[in-house]
Amino acid sequence: MKKQENKINTKVLPGFVELLPADQILFDSMKSIIEKTYQSFGFISLDTPLIERSEVLLSKSGGETEKQIYRFSKGDNDLSLRFDLTVPLARYVSDHFNDLNFPFRRYHVGKVFRGERPQKGRYREFYQCDIDIVGKDKLSLVNDAEILAVIYQVFKNLELPPFIIKINNRKLINGLIESLGLLDKSVEIMRVIDKIEKVSKKDFKIMLSDLSLSAKSISTILKFLSIKGDTSYILSELDALKIQNETFSAGLEELKTVLKYVKSFNLPQEYYGVDLSIARGLDYYTGTVYETSLLNYDSIGSICSGGRYDDLVGSYISQKLLGVGISIGLTRLFAQLQALKIIKTSKATPSKVIILPFAEEMFGKAIEINRLLRGADIASEVYFEDDKFKNKISYVNKLGSEFSIIIGQDELKDNFITLKNMQNGNQEKVDINDLIKKIT
Amino acid sequence: MKKQENKINTKVLPGFVELLPADQILFDSMKSIIEKTYQSFGFISLDTPLIERSEVLLSKSGGETEKQIYRFSKGDNDLSLRFDLTVPLARYVSDHFNDLNFPFRRYHVGKVFRGERPQKGRYREFYQCDIDIVGKDKLSLVNDAEILAVIYQVFKNLELPPFIIKINNRKLINGLIESLGLLDKSVEIMRVIDKIEKVSKKDFKIMLSDLSLSAKSISTILKFLSIKGDTSYILSELDALKIQNETFSAGLEELKTVLKYVKSFNLPQEYYGVDLSIARGLDYYTGTVYETSLLNYDSIGSICSGGRYDDLVGSYISQKLLGVGISIGLTRLFAQLQALKIIKTSKATPSKVIILPFAEEMFGKAIEINRLLRGADIASEVYFEDDKFKNKISYVNKLGSEFSIIIGQDELKDNFITLKNMQNGNQEKVDINDLIKKIT
Repeated sequence: MKKQENKINTKVLPGFVELLPADQILFDSMKSIIEKTYQSFGFISLDTPLIERSEVLLSKSGGETEKQIYRFSKGDNDLSLRFDLTVPLARYVSDHFNDLNFPFRRYHVGKVFRGERPQKGRYREFYQCDIDIVGKDKLSLVNDAEILAVIYQVFKNLELPPFIIKINNRKLINGLIESLGLLDKSVEIMRVIDKIEKVSKKDFKIMLSDLSLSAKSISTILKFLSIKGDTSYILSELDALKIQNETFSAGLEELKTVLKYVKSFNLPQEYYGVDLSIARGLDYYTGTVYETSLLNYDSIGSICSGGRYDDLVGSYISQKLLGVGISIGLTRLFAQLQALKIIKTSKATPSKVIILPFAEEMFGKAIEINRLLRGADIASEVYFEDDKFKNKISYVNKLGSEFSIIIGQDELKDNFITLKNMQNGNQEKVDINDLIKKIT
Repeated sequence: MKKQENKINTKVLPGFVELLPADQILFDSMKSIIEKTYQSFGFISLDTPLIERSEVLLSKSGGETEKQIYRFSKGDNDLSLRFDLTVPLARYVSDHFNDLNFPFRRYHVGKVFRGERPQKGRYREFYQCDIDIVGKDKLSLVNDAEILAVIYQVFKNLELPPFIIKINNRKLINGLIESLGLLDKSVEIMRVIDKIEKVSKKDFKIMLSDLSLSAKSISTILKFLSIKGDTSYILSELDALKIQNETFSAGLEELKTVLKYVKSFNLPQEYYGVDLSIARGLDYYTGTVYETSLLNYDSIGSICSGGRYDDLVGSYISQKLLGVGISIGLTRLFAQLQALKIIKTSKATPSKVIILPFAEEMFGKAIEINRLLRGADIASEVYFEDDKFKNKISYVNKLGSEFSIIIGQDELKDNFITLKNMQNGNQEKVDINDLIKKIT
């Protein structure tokens, strides 16, 4: 240990993540399920540079981003690491506008960087898994409904426990605030509404009072937010509010249309619902907004959020591009699912079979079996090191592969090998011609 | 256009790459083939942070790296973007030493960053696809042979034109230089040898003379480098040189052993050979070295290189870890293959089928068909926008998907749709029950 004192610090940086093999395999399989589901809906992948011009990133964001961003210069260039996948999408679509077909359906799974103060559940480098449907000049509301179908399919395919996709329309809250003459306070009010799940009703009222809202305004907002139930009930209650405001009416109309389309996608009713308290604080969203949560795990918060926006590329080009999209923060979700033991790692190798030749003279046969398995799409490897047999079996056990194949003197002579099932310890002589069938 | 003058520069930075959809799909498929091949040999994936402590990266590299590295500070941290995947591997293995099983077989496909002067074929951000087998204290030479089998399988699976994997052992050249008493000039000599393919024989001699080598030394080096032919011929010629040097003898022994093992892996003989001029300039390599080139495309250079090293983690921990590995520079390879038209893009969507409802009343049926196809693992999408039929068909043509499904008034009534084969233009009415069969 003494010798190590002068060595370099190799610990992973605070706020950054790296996984051990078994966890990495599980993480990769989740990532792959998400990607494949996105593809099955016809979304094409995008992979933009991790480094962008700082002016590109900062033109679209406020002071909070500026503080968190990783910014540096190289030569004459003022550069930054991307902090989300939406700004790169906007830049990409602007730059390649003439080469793309609209509606442009893209997914992007990649790392983003935010130099936040490290704290539980916050990462400085993490994966986002985004989809967006970007329209030119217009985009049918049926797309907002399809996004729900994608969310549903992703989490079904991930085999997560019961979840609910909550949908709302930003124009409802915006219109309500407008109708109360509180437009100048809308940002602050949204921020309070975003906290409704986290504070008591009493505290919630106090927070609104602190914004100098009248008792009547507070009571109207509370009445609006307290509308809960199945979708048709919520829609009729919203009608019954009779709020005379164009924005509100437009939002209600949009929400009705989206919900009508959702029916065509045949989602089981228990998997989605309207939640009027979803505000998605960002100014960016202008219509439909989504959040998704696991029913029995309140602590996790939203595992997939997004919404519709009217102006994707305003600061880049003069085209009217609008869209709807969602993002899954996979690094965080993975950590949460692990902490709650909702997902469990299995093995620390892709190899289903590890072949153990007793000694060098068995290498040839081991390699032959290895090739045979690979040809049948069965990942496998040979343990080639000169070691005690006990250590070879221990290697297989530690990696957790399903089978080992033992090749000793006896197995050299004839066309068979010894197959050991590592789960139950059973060992049997198997003819090489039957091996693939035995294993699959 | 005037309005755009004040807009932000959205062009991708020089030296950085982003692809249009059709190219991206092709790139992703190559990446996926490489990953799957690595997995089939039992390599497990690793995914380390893109940001490392600068001291970690710089402890293992010379001045050239320091100039090229993207370095910045955040808070008190002196940080850099990784410039390869080997240093992160060394750090990872050091940090997680007690949790890993050796030999540790890992692959890593990820982006690395080098702030080089942009020039043709040089990228500042590019993908590397690495595998390494890391041993603790020892690692059988059969692993060096297996790496050849992996290289062979990767390029076979990528369906590249004929290629050759060239193998050498660094100890041969090192020993030769030692035997000539030129150890103090070995770095310079290696650098010249690395250029042998690029210069004339005359210039090559001049470059060696410029290092003040005696005529006899130059002639010995040239004689060594001129040994070409099949592997058994080369090995016997090397024996015949009768060079009295321990390093040389050890290298020859290692090369013979590796070639003996390669036979067990059953690689077709025309796919590999010994090439004594492969030096892989880096000090890092200490034994077997590899390069791979496409037979009929000299301009491309090595498409996969690597070798064996004796000391992976010396500056991090006091363990003896050694290994053997290779790297494919996928971003560069992809660009070269495209430029030479060796690979061609096909379509700009994962969707095999695009469903075209005539109007909103057909949305329900379109969505139903969409779900049916997805359930049969056929990626598909619906074109929902209100548009002329001509424009809908043009969308399908531009994306290049194989089929479109047309749903009009007639198709609403009964249990059929109209299927259009986009390649030959054929159109037919298909019963929905037969649809999957028709398409697959």
